[in-house]
Amino acid sequence: MTTIFDAPEDFAATALAGFADVYRRHVRLVRGGVVRASKVPNGKVSVIVGGGSGNYPAFAGYVGPGMADAAVAGDVFASPSTASVARVCRQASFGGGILLGFGNYAGDVLNFGVAAERLRAEGMDVRIVTVTDDVASAPVDSHRKRRGIAGDLVVFKVAGAAAEAGLSLDEVERVTLHAHDRTVSFGVAFGGCTLPGAGGPLFTVPKGKMALGLGIHGEPGISEESTVSAPELAALLTGKLLAERPQGTHRVAALLNGLGSTKYEELFVLWVSVRRLLEDAGLEIVAPEVGEYVTSLDMQGCSLTLMWLDDELEKYWT
Amino acid sequence: MTTIFDAPEDFAATALAGFADVYRRHVRLVRGGVVRASKVPNGKVSVIVGGGSGNYPAFAGYVGPGMADAAVAGDVFASPSTASVARVCRQASFGGGILLGFGNYAGDVLNFGVAAERLRAEGMDVRIVTVTDDVASAPVDSHRKRRGIAGDLVVFKVAGAAAEAGLSLDEVERVTLHAHDRTVSFGVAFGGCTLPGAGGPLFTVPKGKMALGLGIHGEPGISEESTVSAPELAALLTGKLLAERPQGTHRVAALLNGLGSTKYEELFVLWVSVRRLLEDAGLEIVAPEVGEYVTSLDMQGCSLTLMWLDDELEKYWT
Repeated sequence: MTTIFDAPEDFAATALAGFADVYRRHVRLVRGGVVRASKVPNGKVSVIVGGGSGNYPAFAGYVGPGMADAAVAGDVFASPSTASVARVCRQASFGGGILLGFGNYAGDVLNFGVAAERLRAEGMDVRIVTVTDDVASAPVDSHRKRRGIAGDLVVFKVAGAAAEAGLSLDEVERVTLHAHDRTVSFGVAFGGCTLPGAGGPLFTVPKGKMALGLGIHGEPGISEESTVSAPELAALLTGKLLAERPQGTHRVAALLNGLGSTKYEELFVLWVSVRRLLEDAGLEIVAPEVGEYVTSLDMQGCSLTLMWLDDELEKYWT
Repeated sequence: MTTIFDAPEDFAATALAGFADVYRRHVRLVRGGVVRASKVPNGKVSVIVGGGSGNYPAFAGYVGPGMADAAVAGDVFASPSTASVARVCRQASFGGGILLGFGNYAGDVLNFGVAAERLRAEGMDVRIVTVTDDVASAPVDSHRKRRGIAGDLVVFKVAGAAAEAGLSLDEVERVTLHAHDRTVSFGVAFGGCTLPGAGGPLFTVPKGKMALGLGIHGEPGISEESTVSAPELAALLTGKLLAERPQGTHRVAALLNGLGSTKYEELFVLWVSVRRLLEDAGLEIVAPEVGEYVTSLDMQGCSLTLMWLDDELEKYWT
């Protein structure tokens, strides 16, 4: 349940203002987004991310040195407008060109795409990376049709680190696309979230069941099964991802992500089994993250993201 | 709902092991707790905190430079044993004496107290600070009978910073007690949490209602009211705390804490109103924190903590 709000239509904008107030050392509030407050070297590539609100710390919480230079925030679970994207980009442009990153949703693809065209017409070099990490949403041969879920964090981290290291826009784009091609996620949901002001949840999962592959805004999953123990859930999550493991992969970045109401202690319990299964598969886990990195208001559930590392990706991930 | 677990009786221990695995750069797992992994100067006062599990990041997540040197973890919402407290203390003793910090609950008071006696008998100098910040749990003239809730974070932060600054045990104890005497909290709950393996929540709050002053383990509140808008909720929280504002206080540390399923965006929305009301009261807010710092599994609700600052407290808080 989303319980605390004033006017529901102001929820996303007020939340962003509150965030920017608390973290004023790190971000500056602009209309429709936040821009990194720390000094940025002239000529640095800008990494600008965004999407709907309700997924905190995605996306405003990603802004800072070594990650995103700005984030654009739409309404709850709704793409920001084209005007908003273009406006935030103009305020976070340092002369090195812009890499725009967002998850693969129709509204975001449209609005970020039109904004990119507009900025190019103004003379800026703008590239786009659309994250499509959710293996449940389309088969492996339709990789580019998949949704973006918690893989956003991993891909944007690599992009931001590459840009901070001073790489050119061509190179940041290449590295980010490479990270993206090596990043897969799979998730389960135990219960839905409630939009501010709504009388009931956006979707429900029957008690004792879990929805496999459900999207972070309640998009359809692939099946519904009975809940299982932590080791069995770990086997399910790792199994779906290991099925897409590229040949010759020995090292992996891992993100075990909670969606809102599935809490840290549960994630830590699950992590013990996830680690064992990944190591049993001969993988060395590099700098794992376990916590809430891409949420969906108070949705119950979690996802596992893996990025198959090579030396270049490992450098930027760490 | 706590959905992810294996054997419920192993939940707390497995969660702690998973936490220590993910954060192995920062903590070392010992039986019943975690100890700071970073090097500690000889003769430094140890700040050791603890209590039941299920309140992450309290208490294991507080371990690190400038805060706690170790945390003792009991079972979910249950005090750690005397043996456990003593064992963890022995492994995090650097020769400067030990300050033990925990919330005011009967089990913790008993077990930490007996452990302190045992350690004193072994020649260690051990002091105790019991946090009693929850204004809802007893009137102001019975301050020492109050429960400890999110004020733990604030008081332990001051203790840890004072110890890290090299103060003697006498001085760390004095500063910590001073921080404690200047720290108050008030919270509301919208819904209960479910223990691992339990069939239903520990307590419930009727839909559309909120429980005022409910404890972080479902302890009784003072009343039940209809949910209100964010500005009205901010007025309720700040009003209860401002009623205990000491004369001549102009600066304040603030922690707006989510209990688990009341999410960041909601807290940020609420924060906008909290800041306005505190500033309207003539207070300057120093280094506010908004997020999940003392949770109660997936409990729905939030609390506001204020520490009335003077120069000394402000130095250690920041």
